[in-house]
Amino acid sequence: MSDIEIAQQANMKPIIGLVKEQYGIDAEHLDPFGHYKAKLSLEYVASLADKPEGKLILVTAISPTPAGEGKTTTTVGLGDALNRIGKKAMMCLREPSLGPCFGMKGGAAGGGYSQVVPMEDINLHFTGDFHAIGVAHNLLSALIDNHITHGNLLGIDPRRIQWKRVVDMNDRALRKIIIGLGGTGNGYSREDGYDIVVASEVMAILCLATSRADLKKRLGRIVIGYKADGSTAVYASNLKAQGAMAALLKDAIKPNLVQTLENNIAIIHGGPFANIAHGCNTVTATKTALKLADYVITEAGFGADLGAEKFIDIKCRMADLKPSAVVLVATIRALKFHGGVNKEDLNQENLAALEAGFENLERHYNNITQHYGLPCVVCVNHFTFDTQAELDLFKAKCAVLGASCVVSKHWAEGGAGAESLAQEVINIVDHREPGCTFVYDENISSWDKIAAIATKLYGASGISASAKIKAQLKVWDENYGKFPVCIAKTQMSFSTNPALKGAPTGHIVEISEVKLANGAGFIVAIAGDMMTMPGLPKQPAAERIDIDDTGKITGLF
Amino acid sequence: MSDIEIAQQANMKPIIGLVKEQYGIDAEHLDPFGHYKAKLSLEYVASLADKPEGKLILVTAISPTPAGEGKTTTTVGLGDALNRIGKKAMMCLREPSLGPCFGMKGGAAGGGYSQVVPMEDINLHFTGDFHAIGVAHNLLSALIDNHITHGNLLGIDPRRIQWKRVVDMNDRALRKIIIGLGGTGNGYSREDGYDIVVASEVMAILCLATSRADLKKRLGRIVIGYKADGSTAVYASNLKAQGAMAALLKDAIKPNLVQTLENNIAIIHGGPFANIAHGCNTVTATKTALKLADYVITEAGFGADLGAEKFIDIKCRMADLKPSAVVLVATIRALKFHGGVNKEDLNQENLAALEAGFENLERHYNNITQHYGLPCVVCVNHFTFDTQAELDLFKAKCAVLGASCVVSKHWAEGGAGAESLAQEVINIVDHREPGCTFVYDENISSWDKIAAIATKLYGASGISASAKIKAQLKVWDENYGKFPVCIAKTQMSFSTNPALKGAPTGHIVEISEVKLANGAGFIVAIAGDMMTMPGLPKQPAAERIDIDDTGKITGLF
Repeated sequence: MSDIEIAQQANMKPIIGLVKEQYGIDAEHLDPFGHYKAKLSLEYVASLADKPEGKLILVTAISPTPAGEGKTTTTVGLGDALNRIGKKAMMCLREPSLGPCFGMKGGAAGGGYSQVVPMEDINLHFTGDFHAIGVAHNLLSALIDNHITHGNLLGIDPRRIQWKRVVDMNDRALRKIIIGLGGTGNGYSREDGYDIVVASEVMAILCLATSRADLKKRLGRIVIGYKADGSTAVYASNLKAQGAMAALLKDAIKPNLVQTLENNIAIIHGGPFANIAHGCNTVTATKTALKLADYVITEAGFGADLGAEKFIDIKCRMADLKPSAVVLVATIRALKFHGGVNKEDLNQENLAALEAGFENLERHYNNITQHYGLPCVVCVNHFTFDTQAELDLFKAKCAVLGASCVVSKHWAEGGAGAESLAQEVINIVDHREPGCTFVYDENISSWDKIAAIATKLYGASGISASAKIKAQLKVWDENYGKFPVCIAKTQMSFSTNPALKGAPTGHIVEISEVKLANGAGFIVAIAGDMMTMPGLPKQPAAERIDIDDTGKITGLF
Repeated sequence: MSDIEIAQQANMKPIIGLVKEQYGIDAEHLDPFGHYKAKLSLEYVASLADKPEGKLILVTAISPTPAGEGKTTTTVGLGDALNRIGKKAMMCLREPSLGPCFGMKGGAAGGGYSQVVPMEDINLHFTGDFHAIGVAHNLLSALIDNHITHGNLLGIDPRRIQWKRVVDMNDRALRKIIIGLGGTGNGYSREDGYDIVVASEVMAILCLATSRADLKKRLGRIVIGYKADGSTAVYASNLKAQGAMAALLKDAIKPNLVQTLENNIAIIHGGPFANIAHGCNTVTATKTALKLADYVITEAGFGADLGAEKFIDIKCRMADLKPSAVVLVATIRALKFHGGVNKEDLNQENLAALEAGFENLERHYNNITQHYGLPCVVCVNHFTFDTQAELDLFKAKCAVLGASCVVSKHWAEGGAGAESLAQEVINIVDHREPGCTFVYDENISSWDKIAAIATKLYGASGISASAKIKAQLKVWDENYGKFPVCIAKTQMSFSTNPALKGAPTGHIVEISEVKLANGAGFIVAIAGDMMTMPGLPKQPAAERIDIDDTGKITGLF
């Protein structure tokens, strides 16, 4: 059965009653969206302030194949398993983007028997958060060009506008465009472009904001561009945009509650991609879950070089979160992929390739234990094609590494298949003080921060950039000294070259572009030729998606 | 008090209980969106098929001032008044667009004590229908450019693509753009542009579709452009887009239920603008309301030359609706405006200007009674600045015209202020067989259809267009002979010149562009230099909109 077929057979319980039953939260604190989704009021969130916090467990992965290695699936499976063995556990996930949904990857609500539901709703629009983020972003864009059209009192240099437009779609034709054509009535022509909504600074701001007031302050701080002198920043607050933008985000700021196939509560809130953004769900969601549950399982996008690094160095640092352990998800398939096997041949046993590809896992594991200072459980997300010889070899390699390793069958069996993983995690987190170490100190220069990530985690021998970029970073360091860096890099490799699999060393990480995300509070460094707007494949998933006369959706996977 | 302050003091009742109490509909047929909005299932809608239908009353207006004359306010006031005098009445309104909300006009949920609530929610995102329409539209746009990038097997001529992109924002800089710049990886460069979401054919399709199957069929029929021969149409179905588009509209197709300040149920569903689109709420909403209530009051955008004409010639014709009467909303202010008074001086008594401007009302009234074949009640939407002498003159003019006329105070007094209007409407519709006449026969040519509207309703002496446009219309007539026409024209005048107030005659209506809306099932004729993407004013309403720490919104009016 496909994921959507399994999801459609779920025995869902009305969310309002379920939340009341499991967490004692009354209906008045919840805004229902249909019968199976709800938003939690910020007033209720604030009322939890004095409660003790549960343990935070991060699920991350090795460098993935294009299909992904099952981080969300494992997060859900582990959460269900913890609840099965009598623990009070809640999951914190990211909201799916429509881009991959119509492109290559399909939905992002887990898989097999470890899913969150209603799957179609979560993948299509959900509670409207991404739409609100997109329109808040585009309102600011419209206000910028409108200001210039009506006399440009602020003296914005149209050549130095860094605030683009966004759409929640893979649409490569919008990456680089010229706007304002067609005569005086349409404003001044200039270069512009679109990013996908998940890459919007508004997304990052929503994910990092701690209150409505903080949200508005951050929105006002956004640097939209510069004046003609090239250095005087123009802020969203100069355009009086932050009030309307925050009003558009009035509901988006509230965490969304749904359930797993096994009727356990998950919060799904915020959804930046970790290859082009900081890749973690909202601080509000994570902190709320920590107040409500004894164990909180969350995910950070793509491999541990991207999502986990940003989870530690950006999110945990800013929000003062103290994680207790990391689950590193691997698949036998992906390790063979890193060992040089083609996508088509991944279902064939290949011990040599598995052995060779193991170095990818090894580096991620070492990064987590040495540079993040966190205990790590390796979880094999079991596929039916995995052979016993492969699993045995994998376990032997883990033993040499000194890593605890669990083969987990939550995809096929739900929470029951992840009980040993859950037990292993409990054994660690119950016997350890929470906390992690950062990869870099906040007081070093941005250049050194990027270099620290590249050399310590990516195995690079160094980083490079144009003189212009170096000078730009220096200027920002003078004004925004303590900002962490958010590296945009391919998820396919530790390097900037997607074809360089395994655990490359000695490569140079070229920083091709830098952006100031002053509202979010970090500096974005684009490594290699990373796109902040994906394209659709030759056969987009959209072609297969359908809905019948009864409203039943098919082809969403 | 401002509209939003009045709305925030409303004594709202939970919508699920209210719908059950007033219409006996069980919670299982409703999807709640928060506690005060809900969507009605299409299965429930279908279950009403055999019920008798109530009477349909259309609220339209004279040619408006930029602030609008209170059609929505009057629709709500009349509905509340009918319920007050013991009738079972339901209102059918259009959903507001974010464009005017951040631009000049502000919100669109009624005004004063005749509003639908929750006002902030209805104006900002509501239940996400417009976002769903926008993304369904833009998915098709992305699929077009993606198809060309991957080899253009269909042979789409990039110079002949007529399917633009959309955003729910007033953003003039996007009217005319060039996309696909930046090298081979970003596709092929071509001219493109953005319309506001309300102008999307997907909006029209949603408003006219009678079922999920009909929706999908219409989406597949969309003509996105032509092949290099200039005449072979390429359809959305050629790109296999209709399934995913319909899936994105899975909830948007369901009617939305809210309440008035007086706790009567209103359906708000669909929201095309009548100046650039067909301007009526969904057929599903209207038909559902007719099954549930004895009296259904609906509105059609802008003046009766635009909204009412399209309501009759497009919506009633396609959906076989039989209206019983029309309420023509006028304000003393707007009539003085038509009599030549400047916007700033409209609060001063000016009997001469009122007398002169009355000709605008007269033409609308005659159009309704003679060309639409419907009885018409003139409703003065009372403003506090109106003087008794002005009201007396107005009534005298109506008497000469033979029009029944009611001064209605629903803005200040809610339903109680519109009871005499309600009684007048009842007197008419209870003693008349429902039904109207069309302005043109469906079998005449498109050119003659446009000419019929222009000469009969607009007072024009004729229409003009380039030879190319005439030839294009002929080609479409051969293939789509019976399509009605949807004229895009300024709402400020019967002519194409917004400055030509009153009731101009002898003017020529120039058709500057024609578009085939094959999915919606009509031909769009753009009269004059009408924009399908508005711009923001120098001081956009967005600057005043704010939200405080408790989530309370201000500045939305």
